[in-house]
Amino acid sequence: MNRYLTSEAWRVVEKGFDPANMRSSESIFSIGNGRFGQRANHEEGYSGDHMLGSYVGGVYYPDRTKVGWWKNGYPEYFAKVLNATNWTHIGVEVNGVALDFATAVEVAKFERVLDMRQGLLQRTCEVEVVPGVRVKLETERFINMASPNRAAVRMVVTPLEGVTSLAFEPRLDGGITNEDTNWDDAFWRHDNHESDAAAATSVLVNTTEKTAFTVGVGQALDLEGATWEAQEGEKWTGLRATLDASRAVTLTKFVGVVSSLHEKPEACGDVALGEAEAGRTAGYEAERAMHVKTWEDIWALGDIQIEGDVEAQQAIRFNIFHLNQTYRGDDARLNVGPKGFTGEKYGGASYWDTEAYCLPFFLATHPPHVAEQLLRYRHNQLGKAIENAEKLGFRDGAALYPMVTMNGEECHNEWEITFEEIHRNGAMVLALRNHAEYTGDDTYLSREGVEVAVAVARFWAQRVHWSEYRRAFVMLGVTGPNEYENNVNNNWYTNYLAAWCLRYASDLASRFDSDAAPDERASWVDMANGMCLPQQEGTDIRLQQDGFLDKDLRPADSLDAAERPINQVWSWDRILRSCFIKQADVLQGFYFFPDDFSDDELRSNFDFYEPMTVHESSLSPCVHAILAARLGMEDKAVEMYLRTARLDLDDYNAEAYQGLHITSMAGTWMSVVEGFGGFRVRDGVPHFNTMLPSSWKSYAFKLRFRDRTLEVHVAPEGVAVTRLEGEALSVVVNGESREV
Amino acid sequence: MNRYLTSEAWRVVEKGFDPANMRSSESIFSIGNGRFGQRANHEEGYSGDHMLGSYVGGVYYPDRTKVGWWKNGYPEYFAKVLNATNWTHIGVEVNGVALDFATAVEVAKFERVLDMRQGLLQRTCEVEVVPGVRVKLETERFINMASPNRAAVRMVVTPLEGVTSLAFEPRLDGGITNEDTNWDDAFWRHDNHESDAAAATSVLVNTTEKTAFTVGVGQALDLEGATWEAQEGEKWTGLRATLDASRAVTLTKFVGVVSSLHEKPEACGDVALGEAEAGRTAGYEAERAMHVKTWEDIWALGDIQIEGDVEAQQAIRFNIFHLNQTYRGDDARLNVGPKGFTGEKYGGASYWDTEAYCLPFFLATHPPHVAEQLLRYRHNQLGKAIENAEKLGFRDGAALYPMVTMNGEECHNEWEITFEEIHRNGAMVLALRNHAEYTGDDTYLSREGVEVAVAVARFWAQRVHWSEYRRAFVMLGVTGPNEYENNVNNNWYTNYLAAWCLRYASDLASRFDSDAAPDERASWVDMANGMCLPQQEGTDIRLQQDGFLDKDLRPADSLDAAERPINQVWSWDRILRSCFIKQADVLQGFYFFPDDFSDDELRSNFDFYEPMTVHESSLSPCVHAILAARLGMEDKAVEMYLRTARLDLDDYNAEAYQGLHITSMAGTWMSVVEGFGGFRVRDGVPHFNTMLPSSWKSYAFKLRFRDRTLEVHVAPEGVAVTRLEGEALSVVVNGESREV
Repeated sequence: MNRYLTSEAWRVVEKGFDPANMRSSESIFSIGNGRFGQRANHEEGYSGDHMLGSYVGGVYYPDRTKVGWWKNGYPEYFAKVLNATNWTHIGVEVNGVALDFATAVEVAKFERVLDMRQGLLQRTCEVEVVPGVRVKLETERFINMASPNRAAVRMVVTPLEGVTSLAFEPRLDGGITNEDTNWDDAFWRHDNHESDAAAATSVLVNTTEKTAFTVGVGQALDLEGATWEAQEGEKWTGLRATLDASRAVTLTKFVGVVSSLHEKPEACGDVALGEAEAGRTAGYEAERAMHVKTWEDIWALGDIQIEGDVEAQQAIRFNIFHLNQTYRGDDARLNVGPKGFTGEKYGGASYWDTEAYCLPFFLATHPPHVAEQLLRYRHNQLGKAIENAEKLGFRDGAALYPMVTMNGEECHNEWEITFEEIHRNGAMVLALRNHAEYTGDDTYLSREGVEVAVAVARFWAQRVHWSEYRRAFVMLGVTGPNEYENNVNNNWYTNYLAAWCLRYASDLASRFDSDAAPDERASWVDMANGMCLPQQEGTDIRLQQDGFLDKDLRPADSLDAAERPINQVWSWDRILRSCFIKQADVLQGFYFFPDDFSDDELRSNFDFYEPMTVHESSLSPCVHAILAARLGMEDKAVEMYLRTARLDLDDYNAEAYQGLHITSMAGTWMSVVEGFGGFRVRDGVPHFNTMLPSSWKSYAFKLRFRDRTLEVHVAPEGVAVTRLEGEALSVVVNGESREV
Repeated sequence: MNRYLTSEAWRVVEKGFDPANMRSSESIFSIGNGRFGQRANHEEGYSGDHMLGSYVGGVYYPDRTKVGWWKNGYPEYFAKVLNATNWTHIGVEVNGVALDFATAVEVAKFERVLDMRQGLLQRTCEVEVVPGVRVKLETERFINMASPNRAAVRMVVTPLEGVTSLAFEPRLDGGITNEDTNWDDAFWRHDNHESDAAAATSVLVNTTEKTAFTVGVGQALDLEGATWEAQEGEKWTGLRATLDASRAVTLTKFVGVVSSLHEKPEACGDVALGEAEAGRTAGYEAERAMHVKTWEDIWALGDIQIEGDVEAQQAIRFNIFHLNQTYRGDDARLNVGPKGFTGEKYGGASYWDTEAYCLPFFLATHPPHVAEQLLRYRHNQLGKAIENAEKLGFRDGAALYPMVTMNGEECHNEWEITFEEIHRNGAMVLALRNHAEYTGDDTYLSREGVEVAVAVARFWAQRVHWSEYRRAFVMLGVTGPNEYENNVNNNWYTNYLAAWCLRYASDLASRFDSDAAPDERASWVDMANGMCLPQQEGTDIRLQQDGFLDKDLRPADSLDAAERPINQVWSWDRILRSCFIKQADVLQGFYFFPDDFSDDELRSNFDFYEPMTVHESSLSPCVHAILAARLGMEDKAVEMYLRTARLDLDDYNAEAYQGLHITSMAGTWMSVVEGFGGFRVRDGVPHFNTMLPSSWKSYAFKLRFRDRTLEVHVAPEGVAVTRLEGEALSVVVNGESREV
C-alpha cells in the first residue's frame, strides 16, 4: 500500500516530487491511444532510478525461452512487449547545465496531473538547477486518440532566477533496452536516422530482430526564434537550439509513430515524419482539441458517475481511462495486454483475461465492432491453436488456445500453466456466447464463432476419458483459475466449463454450417452429461477438485500477517497443499453461469470458499464483489470493490512500478455494473438487481445493448433506467419488469 | 541401442575407430580411482567432436540457478561437477604435423581396451598422418588405485613409413570449460604454471571461482634421449622435445593431482609435483604393479563370476569396475555422483540413489568403513538439511535432505522435485537400518544414526496432517519415485516409508540418547498407525496415490514404438495424466520392505504395476529384476537384468555420450546378489533364495557379512555357501537352514 496521490473526481494528482515513487508514477500516469503508448517518463530525461517505456501495439520480440529443466512441448520463445524508440525526449540545459530532477538542487511546487477527462499528462514545477539558478517547467503531452499515429508535447520553460541561457535538444532515441530480457539479446536493429535543421524535423527508423517489425518515428518542432542545429549519436537523432533567457520559452514537439503493421516497412519513416509535420501544420491547439473531443465521446458512453465517494469515483474513472488507452478496437491483431502500454512484465498481448474480464466492458461501452475485433483476434489464430494442441498430442482439428501469446503461438513455459491451465480454452467459447447474447446478433457466431467452438469442443472431447472406476468422464492433470493448485484431477470449474462448451458447440454445429457430424455432436453431449462434477456429499458444495476435503481447511484470517502474501513468504509446495485460494475458482463458475445455480447454492459455496481465498491475483476481488453484491453482502462487496478499484492507485501490492493491472481494470467496471448494478442478460432481456453502498449517494452508468443506449441511475429514491438511443425494450429492475 | 563393443569376460574392447562413437567411448572407457577420474580423451588431442572431462572429487562450482519462473524456496545455485585441468595431454607431431585422428588420412587397426581386471586403459593403432607418413601409436594409462594422488601415461610411437622427425609436447592444460553451464561463467581462476626443462617437470595450479577449491597438477616426464624445452600458453604449460625418427619412442608421463580438500591451497602445486616425481622415481612398472595389485584385492572380494554368458559376465564386471572407480570410501565429503567421473550431467555428488541403491554394494564388497563414510556424509550435512527444511517452513529441528547436493544444500530447482520428491528423506533412515542390520553393529546408529532418524521423523510429523474427512493422517502434494506423477496426494510409497521412519525413529530414540521426549515419540507412533495407505477395495493392490484408478489404465506395450520413450515424445501433461510409470514406486516399497508383504501380495502388485511401467529411469529395471526373481518369473527377471547390466555398454537409451549411469550400476549388482541370489538379511541371518537363469551355467559372488566373508556359488547341481573368513554362522538357503 502506498497512498501518495490526491483524489479528485477527474484527475490523478501527484504533489511534491519523491524519487522513491518515480517508477510507480511512471506507470500510473502512463498515456496511450490503443495504437501506441508509454510510461510517464520525464521529457527532459532523468538520471535517477526509473524505467523508460515506450510501446507500439503488436510490435514484439520472440525472446528465446529461459527454463531450468526443459519439458517436452515447451515453446521456443516468449513474445516480449518491447521498449521502442523514446520520442518524448526534450533535453533542456540551463546555463549549460542539464535540467535533471536527479541532480537539481531542488524541485519545488511539483505537481503531476493525469487529466482523465481530456487525456492529458501535465507537469508543473520550479527547479533550482544549480544554486541560484531557477526555472519554472511546465509540460503537457497527449497521444492523439483522434489521429492514432500522432502525439504532441508542449514544454514551457520560464526563467525565474539567474538564468543566462537555455538550450533545448528534442531527440528521437532508438538506443533503448528492455529490462525484461532472458538473454540480453539486442531486440532492435537500427536502420537509419536523420535530422533536418532547416525543416526542424527528425526521423528515426529501427526494426526488431527476428520478427522484423519496423517502427518509424518522426518529430516536427515549433519554437519561436530558434535556430536549430542537427545532432546525432549512434542510435539517436535530434535538433539543438540555444536561446537567450529573457523570456519564457514554449517548445512544441509534434510526433508521428508508425509501424509496419500499418505501413510498408520502407515507408514507416516517411509516414511518421509526415504525421509529425501534419500535426505541426494543424497546430497544437487544434490537435489537442480533436484529441479532447474524442475523449469526450468515449466518456459520454463509458463514464460511470459515483456521487458521495470521490475515491470510488476517481478509481472507476482511472480504470475506464486506462482500458480505453489500451485498446481501441480497430485492429484484430491487437489485444488487451496484462500491462497494456504501462510496463514490460508478463509480455504477450493476451491472456484469458481478455475473454473472461475485458469483453463485457468493451461490449457495453463501445460500438459492436470494438468487441468483435477481440473475437476475431482468436479466430485469426485458430490455426495456431490447432498447432498448439497438436504439439501436445491432440489431433483432428482440436484447438488449444495459448495461455499467453502475441501471434497465436504459446509463449508460456511452466508445465503446470502452459499445458494444464486449459480452462482458458472455455473462456474463448463463453466470449462467443456473451457477444451473441449481448448484441442479439448471431452473424459472427454463425460463421467464425462456430469454427472456434467446434475446435475447442474437439479438444475437450479428447482431453477427457471415461473412467469405469468412477463411472464418469474425468479430466486429470489440470490447473484451474486458482493457480495455487497445480496438476489436480477433476477441477470442478474446468469440467463444468468443458461440459458447457461441449453442449454449446453441439448446438451451434447443428444450427450453423460445420463439419461436426451428428454422431460427433452426440458424443459431445454424452460427455457433457457424464462429466465428473465433484460435490461434497450431503451438501451443495462443489469441490474445487478431487480430494479437496482432505486439506487442512482453515480461513485465510488465521494466517499471521507476516505470512501474507503467501506467495512471497511460503514455499510453493506449502501453498499447493494448503487450502488457500489465489482467486475465484469454483466461484468463477458461479459467476459465469449465474442462472445455473440458486442463491442458496451460491451462498453455500461463497461461504465455504471465500474465507479461504487470499485474493493474491488482481482478478480475484472483482468476481467476489459481484457475487457478494448478488448475495446482498454489502460490506464484503464494498471491501472487494475497493480492492479492485484502487489496486494500482493505492498500490496495494507494491508492484505498480512494474506497470498497471490493465485487465483487472475491466473487473472493476464489472464490479460496478454487474455487481452493484446487478446487470445480467437473461433470455435477451437486461436485468438489474441493484445495491447502493451506504457510503455512496448514487451512481450511474450507461450501456450499449442491442442497438440501444441505456442509462442506469441508482439512488436511494430508486432506480431509473432511461433509454437514450434506439428502440423501446423491456428490462427487469429488481425483479420488476419495465418498458423503457 | 548402439552395440559396437566386443564382449570379453574381463575386457571391453572397441575395434576400429568411428568418430560417431567418440563421445560414448569417452564415457565407457573412463577411468578413476575414487579421488579423481576422467573420460577417455585421447592423449594426443582430438580436433573432432568430443567432450573433454577430467574431474576431481568434491571440487564443484555453484552455478547460479537458471529458471524460467522463480518459485519461493528455490535454491540460489546448482553445484556443478567441474571439468578440471587436462593432465593427459601429450601432443605428438610427426614430420611437423600434429597427430590427430580427426585430420589423419587413416586410422588403421584401432583397438581401445578397458582392462577391468587391471584397471588399465589401452589404445593401439596405426595412423597415416599425412599421405605416405605412418606411425604406430600405443598408449596405456591408469589412475593409481593404490596411491590416490597419482596417475601415469605411457605412450609408444613407432615410425612405420616416411617418418623423419617426431616431436612430443606433454602438457598440463587449465584452459578448459564445462559444457554444462547455466550462464557461461568462468568456473576457474588460473593461479600459476611453470615448467622446468632440466627437471622435465611441469606444474599448474588453478582455483575455482566462488568455492575456492585449489587443484594442483604436476607432471614428471621420462623420455630417453630427450632434450626438453619449456613451453607455455596463457593457461597451460608443457615441455617439448624433438627426436629423430630412427626408432620407437617410449614416453612416460607421471602425474600428480592434488586438491585443497586434502592439502593447503598454497601447497597443492608442490605436492602434486612431488607425487609426479615420486612416481617417476618409482618407475612405471612399479607404479603399475602396485595399482594392479590393488585392483586384484578389490576383485578378490567384489567380483561376480557368471559362467555360460560372456555378455552377462562382462556387464556385471563393467558395473562393479565403475562403482569402484567412483567411490573409495576414505573421505566423508565425497559420495557417488550420478555420472561419477564420466560426465558432467546432473551435477551434484549425491541423490537418494546412494542410500537406496549404492549402499548395499559397498556394504557387501568392502570393509565396513567404506559404507560408513556414506552414512557420515549425511550426518555431516544434517545441519544443512535442517536449514533446508526451515526454508520450506518446517521448524524444531525437522530435516529435509536435498534432492541433489554437494555440500548439503539443495541444488535442484523444479518445485515438483525439489520440494515434493521428499521420499528421499526416508531413504536416509533406511540406509541406517540396512547398515546396522548388515554389520550387526549399532555403534554408528546409537550416536550419529539416531540424530538423523529423529530429525527426519520430525519432518514427517510436520509434513502430514490429520484429515477429519479421511479419518487418517494424509500427506498431500508429493512426488513419488515415479517422477511421471507430480504433486499427488498420499503416494503409498512415501506414506508407507514415512510411517516406517516414524516408528523406527521412535524406537531408536527410546533405545539411544536423544532429545525426543516420550510424548513426541508417542505422537510419531500414532501418526504411523493412522497413516493413510491407499488400497483398492477388495484387492491387495496398494494404490500409487489417491485417484490412481481414475486413470486410463493400459499396458505400456499398447504404446506405439514411435511413442517410446514417452519422455522424449509426449508432452509433460500427457505423461502425468497417463498411467505409465517411470520406475518402481509402489514396488519400490515392496522391495525395501520384503518381509512386510506376502508373495501373493507382491504378485498382485507386480502384475498390476509392472505392465504399466516404461522403465525410463535407469533405476527401474534392477528393482523389477529382483522382485521378478523372487516371484520366480525368470524371463522377466532376465529381461530386466540385461536392461540394467548392459544399459551403458549397449547404450540402450542413446545417452552414454553424456556419461555413465553410475548409481544404477549398483542396481545391477543387486539384481544378481539380491535378485538371482535372493540374498536378504532377516533377523540377522543371511537368506538366499536362488534362481539360475537357464542361459547361465553358474554364477558366484562373495559377501562380507558381520566380520565374515562368504562365497555363494549357484549351479544346476546346487547352491554352495562357503565361509572364507570369520566365525561360523547360520544361513538359510532356499528355505533350508545351514551352518557355514
